[in-house]
Amino acid sequence: MADYIEPRVLKGFRDFLPSSEIARRDILESLEKSFRAYGFVPIDTPVLEYADILLGKGGGETEKQIYRFNDNGGRDVAMRFDLTVPFARFMAQHREELYLPFKRYHIAKVWRGENTQRGRYREFIQCDFDIVGSHSAASDFEILLVMKNSLEMVSQDKEKCSITIRYNHRGLFNRFLSRLEVMDKSVEILRTVDKLSKIGRQETENLLREQIGDKAKAVLDYIEASGSFEEKLKTLNKAATGSDSENCPEAECLYLIHQFMLDTGTEKTFVLDPAITRGLDYYTGIVFESFLNDLPDIGSVCSGGRYDNLVGLYTKPNSGEAVGGVGTSIGIDRLIAALETLGKLNTKSSYADIAIACLKEKDSGLCQALAERFRAKGMACEVFLDEAKLQKQYVLAEKKGLSWLIIPDEENANNYTLRNLKTRENQSMSEEKLLGFFK
Amino acid sequence: MADYIEPRVLKGFRDFLPSSEIARRDILESLEKSFRAYGFVPIDTPVLEYADILLGKGGGETEKQIYRFNDNGGRDVAMRFDLTVPFARFMAQHREELYLPFKRYHIAKVWRGENTQRGRYREFIQCDFDIVGSHSAASDFEILLVMKNSLEMVSQDKEKCSITIRYNHRGLFNRFLSRLEVMDKSVEILRTVDKLSKIGRQETENLLREQIGDKAKAVLDYIEASGSFEEKLKTLNKAATGSDSENCPEAECLYLIHQFMLDTGTEKTFVLDPAITRGLDYYTGIVFESFLNDLPDIGSVCSGGRYDNLVGLYTKPNSGEAVGGVGTSIGIDRLIAALETLGKLNTKSSYADIAIACLKEKDSGLCQALAERFRAKGMACEVFLDEAKLQKQYVLAEKKGLSWLIIPDEENANNYTLRNLKTRENQSMSEEKLLGFFK
Repeated sequence: MADYIEPRVLKGFRDFLPSSEIARRDILESLEKSFRAYGFVPIDTPVLEYADILLGKGGGETEKQIYRFNDNGGRDVAMRFDLTVPFARFMAQHREELYLPFKRYHIAKVWRGENTQRGRYREFIQCDFDIVGSHSAASDFEILLVMKNSLEMVSQDKEKCSITIRYNHRGLFNRFLSRLEVMDKSVEILRTVDKLSKIGRQETENLLREQIGDKAKAVLDYIEASGSFEEKLKTLNKAATGSDSENCPEAECLYLIHQFMLDTGTEKTFVLDPAITRGLDYYTGIVFESFLNDLPDIGSVCSGGRYDNLVGLYTKPNSGEAVGGVGTSIGIDRLIAALETLGKLNTKSSYADIAIACLKEKDSGLCQALAERFRAKGMACEVFLDEAKLQKQYVLAEKKGLSWLIIPDEENANNYTLRNLKTRENQSMSEEKLLGFFK
Repeated sequence: MADYIEPRVLKGFRDFLPSSEIARRDILESLEKSFRAYGFVPIDTPVLEYADILLGKGGGETEKQIYRFNDNGGRDVAMRFDLTVPFARFMAQHREELYLPFKRYHIAKVWRGENTQRGRYREFIQCDFDIVGSHSAASDFEILLVMKNSLEMVSQDKEKCSITIRYNHRGLFNRFLSRLEVMDKSVEILRTVDKLSKIGRQETENLLREQIGDKAKAVLDYIEASGSFEEKLKTLNKAATGSDSENCPEAECLYLIHQFMLDTGTEKTFVLDPAITRGLDYYTGIVFESFLNDLPDIGSVCSGGRYDNLVGLYTKPNSGEAVGGVGTSIGIDRLIAALETLGKLNTKSSYADIAIACLKEKDSGLCQALAERFRAKGMACEVFLDEAKLQKQYVLAEKKGLSWLIIPDEENANNYTLRNLKTRENQSMSEEKLLGFFK
């Protein structure tokens, strides 16, 4: 048996001390509140799953990064590396117990053995929300609206102008690529276009020329379509259909979503951006990324899109319906880092704002009785638990970031000194006056 | 690449569908609210740690049950099996960044490869709260008070009479065992006494006789001390000290705690019970267990006690201060099962109570605009996202457990039908009247 073990955590893993954890929980609680306001409901799935469930679709990067091992019963198991795969398994398994459309959110930790040199963590929180089982433009728009309101809520943005959500339609882009007769190269083209903002126009053009020769020009024209929403969409529809007058279904979907933006007065937040493709090949409809206007360089803090079939791999071939949906994932670590940079991160180190000093330990029950009256009114109130000089209790209260310290009067049981810890001013008052002071 | 993978979870692991997850979150949110009201703050630690950190103290059972493996970098790692060991490591590692006394709570999943035949889960949530760095009876009492109020809060117990917390002092018991000259057998005796309620008096006596011969009688007299609080404590103090008049420090501590109970009017919840020992040998002061009065048979839903040194193993020998504390752990699964049995479990399947029907998809933006007015008032409001016959929308609303469905008037944009889904009554009203109806 060891005598001493050096306390340490694994590389890429983190402890959260109270002030960081409170900041993180404040954000997650705001997000949850927002999701709930729209009728989204929480689910939970196990951290450990059979490895074949999580790795079903194969994929080299995932396989290398996943925490996988044999459990004590010899089962091949792994820790989840995202919340999407478990959600797909969940939907297939519980299809009969759920009503569609199903609107769920899931906020939980995931694990990836990432290269930590890139500033990545091996344990982090994902926050996903999806609507599955509806194909409507109305559900596409709802996801966009929830993104907007959730991000505004966590950034405490009362003017509601700090977020830009850039969106596009992958189906429309695919229709254009078909017409250009380059669908066989669509995956490479999508990945190239996705990198536009990182590698610049010239490099994008070079890569596209390597992939599709002179047709690169048409792709560049498409992704650089400009003007108002209507002008851009007219250009895109023409490129995808050849027609000036008839809209394809994907263009109709974008018109409808734009109308919903106008109806809700939210259109200023949204930009139709034909260069948004999202590299992942499972998106089939609308795709989107969101940016903080004051910190565009950190990249998208929330991205996602519409997919055709979530449950495919977990449904017996030809046996079940496809379950399509639209969903998104908020990058919590990136969002927190951004809010910190912008000075918008809550940095309190306690939920309480008031404490009662401990002059004599034997009076602690009376102090708790007073504190219970505050707590019953919904206010957090600490009771200091160790006899100490007042000066020491001031220091403790300040370390905890409290605003007020209540000091019992040693002569008169019904009298208290209330100290404002910010201004260091004291005032004397009765218990009833004290309770009235904090409403 | 597989075509089909059967969707399933590992034995002992669980999916939480919305209604179960909402019920669980309601309970955890109530508990958190209670902890925060007393000035407790949250922390978080990694799920994966170096195996030597988690297994430091050895222990056969733990070693057999822990999920342990080599990660991709060849490190010997394990998933945490409780929140106490990581907290000890955390306190040792961050001692300089924290102020004492430090009051933390931690609600998180832990994993144990338990035998699932006993109805145990391999993944479950623990909920711990502790005060470390204070030796006062005031901090012992605060833990008891938080337990009482938290359990009453989650059981929605307005009369506050459904919980009994049984407590004892391990130090006083040890003093008695010393005087009886059986301290060398104290671990076995404690474990035997701990089983009293399970194995009955006779079996306990038999076991004690095997362990300490005729001295068993004295131990039985001690743990069966009866009468009022004062009478019991007088008996125990006499047994521990031989004195009728002088109280040992442990008895003084119990008197003080009892005084705090009287001062806060909470004494009816608490019973001094000398048979409560808690088998674990690291407790040194007060120990306690709590029971639901309507379901005593399920056993303790929240237990804990005072320990001398949390950080010992992670502090270089002779280099640091001991960090003692008092803390407790709530058995969330057992508590949920109990509340379910008592019919006190919230079983809603959505946070929203109102939805707006979708008659024409093109009006979805206007429906969202109306819904936003409810959400701005803090009310959750769904917007149905697919055109469907009204009858189908009633069914969906009922499945979601909603109370109200708002149906736009196809003739008059400012008029709505409000359907009470419980009574199936409809009334017609304007948008302003509708907003006023839900305050």
